[in-house]
Amino acid sequence: MLTTSIKRLYVGRPLRSDRLGETLLPKRIALPVFASDPLSSVAYATQEILLVLALGGLAYLYLAPWVALAVVVLLALVVASYRQVVRAYPSGGGSYEVASRNLGPTAGLVVAAALLVDYVMTVAVSVAAGVDNIVSAVPALHPYRVVVCVGLVALLMTMNLRGVRESGRAFAWPTYLFIAAVLVMVAVGLGRAVAGDPPVAESAGWTVRPEQVGLTGLALVLLALRAFASGCTALTGVEAISNGVPSFRPPKRENAARTMLAMGLVAITLFAGITALALVAHVRVAEDTCALVGFPGDCTTDPQRTAVAQLAAAVFGAGGVGFYLVQATTALVLVLAANTAFNGFPMLGAILADDRYLPRQLHTRGDRLAFSNGIVVLAAVAGGLLWMFDASVTRLVQLYILGVFTSFTVSQVGMVRHWGRALAAPGLVDEDRRRLRRSRRVNAAGAVATGLVLLVVLVTKFTHGAYLVVLAVPLLVLLMRAIRRHYARVAAELEPAPGGIPLPPRVHAVVLVSQLHSPTLQALAYARATRPDTLTALTVAITPDEADALRRAWAERDVPVPLTVLDSPFRDVTGPVLAHVARLREQRPEDLVVVVVPEYVVGRWWEGLLHNQSALRLKARLLFQRRVMVVSVPWQLASSHGQGHGHGDGHGGDEGRGRAGRRPERTPVAASTGAGGTSGPGGTGGQGTLLP
Amino acid sequence: MLTTSIKRLYVGRPLRSDRLGETLLPKRIALPVFASDPLSSVAYATQEILLVLALGGLAYLYLAPWVALAVVVLLALVVASYRQVVRAYPSGGGSYEVASRNLGPTAGLVVAAALLVDYVMTVAVSVAAGVDNIVSAVPALHPYRVVVCVGLVALLMTMNLRGVRESGRAFAWPTYLFIAAVLVMVAVGLGRAVAGDPPVAESAGWTVRPEQVGLTGLALVLLALRAFASGCTALTGVEAISNGVPSFRPPKRENAARTMLAMGLVAITLFAGITALALVAHVRVAEDTCALVGFPGDCTTDPQRTAVAQLAAAVFGAGGVGFYLVQATTALVLVLAANTAFNGFPMLGAILADDRYLPRQLHTRGDRLAFSNGIVVLAAVAGGLLWMFDASVTRLVQLYILGVFTSFTVSQVGMVRHWGRALAAPGLVDEDRRRLRRSRRVNAAGAVATGLVLLVVLVTKFTHGAYLVVLAVPLLVLLMRAIRRHYARVAAELEPAPGGIPLPPRVHAVVLVSQLHSPTLQALAYARATRPDTLTALTVAITPDEADALRRAWAERDVPVPLTVLDSPFRDVTGPVLAHVARLREQRPEDLVVVVVPEYVVGRWWEGLLHNQSALRLKARLLFQRRVMVVSVPWQLASSHGQGHGHGDGHGGDEGRGRAGRRPERTPVAASTGAGGTSGPGGTGGQGTLLP
Repeated sequence: MLTTSIKRLYVGRPLRSDRLGETLLPKRIALPVFASDPLSSVAYATQEILLVLALGGLAYLYLAPWVALAVVVLLALVVASYRQVVRAYPSGGGSYEVASRNLGPTAGLVVAAALLVDYVMTVAVSVAAGVDNIVSAVPALHPYRVVVCVGLVALLMTMNLRGVRESGRAFAWPTYLFIAAVLVMVAVGLGRAVAGDPPVAESAGWTVRPEQVGLTGLALVLLALRAFASGCTALTGVEAISNGVPSFRPPKRENAARTMLAMGLVAITLFAGITALALVAHVRVAEDTCALVGFPGDCTTDPQRTAVAQLAAAVFGAGGVGFYLVQATTALVLVLAANTAFNGFPMLGAILADDRYLPRQLHTRGDRLAFSNGIVVLAAVAGGLLWMFDASVTRLVQLYILGVFTSFTVSQVGMVRHWGRALAAPGLVDEDRRRLRRSRRVNAAGAVATGLVLLVVLVTKFTHGAYLVVLAVPLLVLLMRAIRRHYARVAAELEPAPGGIPLPPRVHAVVLVSQLHSPTLQALAYARATRPDTLTALTVAITPDEADALRRAWAERDVPVPLTVLDSPFRDVTGPVLAHVARLREQRPEDLVVVVVPEYVVGRWWEGLLHNQSALRLKARLLFQRRVMVVSVPWQLASSHGQGHGHGDGHGGDEGRGRAGRRPERTPVAASTGAGGTSGPGGTGGQGTLLP
Repeated sequence: MLTTSIKRLYVGRPLRSDRLGETLLPKRIALPVFASDPLSSVAYATQEILLVLALGGLAYLYLAPWVALAVVVLLALVVASYRQVVRAYPSGGGSYEVASRNLGPTAGLVVAAALLVDYVMTVAVSVAAGVDNIVSAVPALHPYRVVVCVGLVALLMTMNLRGVRESGRAFAWPTYLFIAAVLVMVAVGLGRAVAGDPPVAESAGWTVRPEQVGLTGLALVLLALRAFASGCTALTGVEAISNGVPSFRPPKRENAARTMLAMGLVAITLFAGITALALVAHVRVAEDTCALVGFPGDCTTDPQRTAVAQLAAAVFGAGGVGFYLVQATTALVLVLAANTAFNGFPMLGAILADDRYLPRQLHTRGDRLAFSNGIVVLAAVAGGLLWMFDASVTRLVQLYILGVFTSFTVSQVGMVRHWGRALAAPGLVDEDRRRLRRSRRVNAAGAVATGLVLLVVLVTKFTHGAYLVVLAVPLLVLLMRAIRRHYARVAAELEPAPGGIPLPPRVHAVVLVSQLHSPTLQALAYARATRPDTLTALTVAITPDEADALRRAWAERDVPVPLTVLDSPFRDVTGPVLAHVARLREQRPEDLVVVVVPEYVVGRWWEGLLHNQSALRLKARLLFQRRVMVVSVPWQLASSHGQGHGHGDGHGGDEGRGRAGRRPERTPVAASTGAGGTSGPGGTGGQGTLLP
């Protein structure tokens, strides 16, 4: 079919389930796939720190090194904590599994909700920051920022629908190129500074009109904390590896822990290097472009260049190959960082669906073995956010960090509990105890640190947009609990009773008829073939003329099935049929009513528009009645041939016509409706009879 | 159900078919219902004449009385012609019936297509002109013109979905008020002129910058003809009564002819009066507001007042009660004129659907006896046009007149042929012949006049938008012929063969199974109750674990039906099942395969989102296979109770459980698949057995 062909073209040919193992990732591929998020966030973390400090004026930039140092320490601590998570919980449940196993299902759900929000924001923020870097190199694209962002999200969705391994390969080299480009830029820039010829950013001569002046005491602390909270974007995505352990090649947990360590070291190097270089080169950025005194061009419409772009221009020259290489790799790695979420979100969704907290469709692997539904949901929500927030990194970042640190904190607390339980186990030797205590100390430090940051983020970001996350997480938790309750209720209802299901003693077949054409005759013949205890044809008279015409045709053809005509003063077909079936069921409460609907099947979609769909509506309504079987007897019109992958064997009617007349009557319809009416003993052989 | 309640609130309670007679209209209601279109078009016809003449400058306004006179003569001729149509063809087929009966089906289709276009344009033009008159009185509404137009179309749709009679009543008094208001305005205005104190329009002092200057010879004739073509908008809708004859009270044709005459006289009086008054009061209008020298305000954004508004302001004073009364009734009658089309379009659609030229859904009467689908289609297309053409009367009018005069001309030619045939009939007395010849002369004059106008319109309007209609009419004709061919082909395919349908000798039931829960057990029990020759359960193994779990459950419960497990390496349920059924059918080409699908039914729409819809897809695909019956066995979950108007009688399972164990086995499943395998003789009474 056409839709199938389009799908094949779009996602590729389907993969067999037993090829699932093939999509496992070696470390050198897993690092870029899962670590592009934390690595790429260094591209905007420095900028966000400078931006917040500039609210108080350039004077407060002296705080920047200390803020950056705090971020680096925190990053090291969180990486150390998550290496413990990876080792202890290698199933890919990550923070969610840690929290629910150790702190109960509600804590798990809170983490899950925070992570879901976090993944969505990863896509939105990374794509927006990536496009900002593209615009820094190609300013002509500035008016199309939002469209480019949404287009990139669609592209990521497509690549991931085609399967994780192929996308992993495609995503490997840009990350390595980005690391190399930034390292070279930092080395050259700092080297020049040491040599006495420091690079100078284009904005070095500008000043910033402060929003708040003369900050002292508490206000100064708050500004520093706010800058720190913004800088914590550098930590986003650190947990991605812990959710992706099952994608690693064995030994999974060791490979994942090692990859995590490598990622942490690289992230710290890049972040520290960019921050140092930005301070050396005197980069100036501001939340409001018009607060920049000295900004050339129209501050209401023209974009500021990103901090990374300013650095690349200062080090390599604004039009040089180096500049474009840094911008291209930064933009690429940011867009690909969004891919981390395209790995993590569907996997977490599948785990939650397996636990019955989300619709089970999220647990279904698509043709290419990816969790297709989760991928599509993620792309839709992230695209919507980019559209709503005008693809502004600074506005989107406000929604980002809260979710990240919620899951950090809860899962670290869970890990502390985990080690506590392990310590309580009997039969431990001293070395085990020491090891467990050390692990507990690491996670306790992580829990305290991330908990404090969570508090700082909540206080400093709440009114700037984080309140949306404060609303979204509990709502998601409630929704997931409601979904689980629904599934539990359905499962209880479907649980087979010990007594089983009684076999209905008699079967009453009713064939719905509108005209006396081939599909009707076929339905009558098939209904007869199943030998019901009673068989009647039923029609609804919309106009008396129609009913009379049908009665005449019935008599002319001498159809051996009685015809019942129902009146329908309101021209409704469904109502009278439902009422008739309900009456039948009331009269014979133990019996089974079989409603047979003759249908004809057209092959082209537009042909469906030309035929009434009342049979569909009727069938849907009949499903709400008990002790009813709803039977479709399809008649395939010529235009449907070759559709639905049917193995055509010629028309039922055609086959029989040639042999008409030489078949003995086999199964006369028992008209008796009384108790004990069994079907006739049948004819002699495998030959059917004909319905006239 | 909720949707039903909303529908009741929206369209009202359903009406019985036998109340169809009650919706017939007396003449005094039929006049406003069917004549509001031709009457209201006088509100813009004068203006369109002046507008075209002004293209040559004010000097050419001397042509206006002659152009108006030509329009009046043509109007009288067309009314006389259509009185003949009403008398000869009272079935409501109008021009379509006349053309197809006398000139063949293609001519009929051309007329039908032209009329369908015409009805759509009636709605668009009338609503746009009505809103222009509202804006003339309340200029603040000018920015919301298009939205107001679309809103009014939606309102008309609603009123008509509720039924023609009620809307007829609601629409009667504004038409009479409009006639009265315009007559009083014309009388007062012309009276003042006779008394030497003529009213002076606000635009009397303005001049018009001509688009074409120094017109002579052919160019002058063309200008006059173009003005005449625009003035012919006064004739639009004259045929509406001929399509609405069945809605008249008996004697239908006489009542309709008389209503037509009254309508013609009123229309001529109003049009002549408004035109005379506009010339006396020196009304100036221009297609391009910026061509008006003296126009106050910004000619690029501010609207011109309509000619009627200028006259009302000149006669009654711009802020007076009279002014607002004229504007209100004009606006109202124009909007209600659109209602003519809401009567005519669905009725023509129903006639065409009855002739199989349009989808038969257009022939279905809704709950309130109106042709609901036609009403909705009309509203959608007209609303779309208003949106696209920015609700500009002058642009929409270009698309309007061509369709009108196409149907006029073709049907008048048809009438000439009609009278010719009548004259050829044997046994006519002289008086009959005289009467028939007179009728033929009337229609021949009508045909020649409207044919000439059609030519004029085609030449003068083609490049101004009429080319769209020149494209649309043939496309519609082709579409209608294609639809008819489709229906004919389907009817031929469904025609029962003389040989009848062979009764399949054996029945093979396959119950699809995913888990062993109550719906599955119920489906197995019901399938057994129908006593098939073979009965198997079929499952598709997405993962080996699932299949093993099902096999274990099957064995534990000791289900007396064999279980077949199909592999599905691509995790697709539909494909393997279809292939299995196709194999079954190939092995036993004469037998019937019954595919039983256990389903559970949820009551709330959102619950549907939480359950996989793969059963739906599978059932749809099975319908493309021959010799297959597709059976749904529904299990109603608690949330579905009270839905679908089912008469609940307790769960099938519940009923039986209490009596478990005391029922004898009645119908053992015949496992034999060979020829002659008949079902067992059955037990002793009307008691079913239990499926464990």
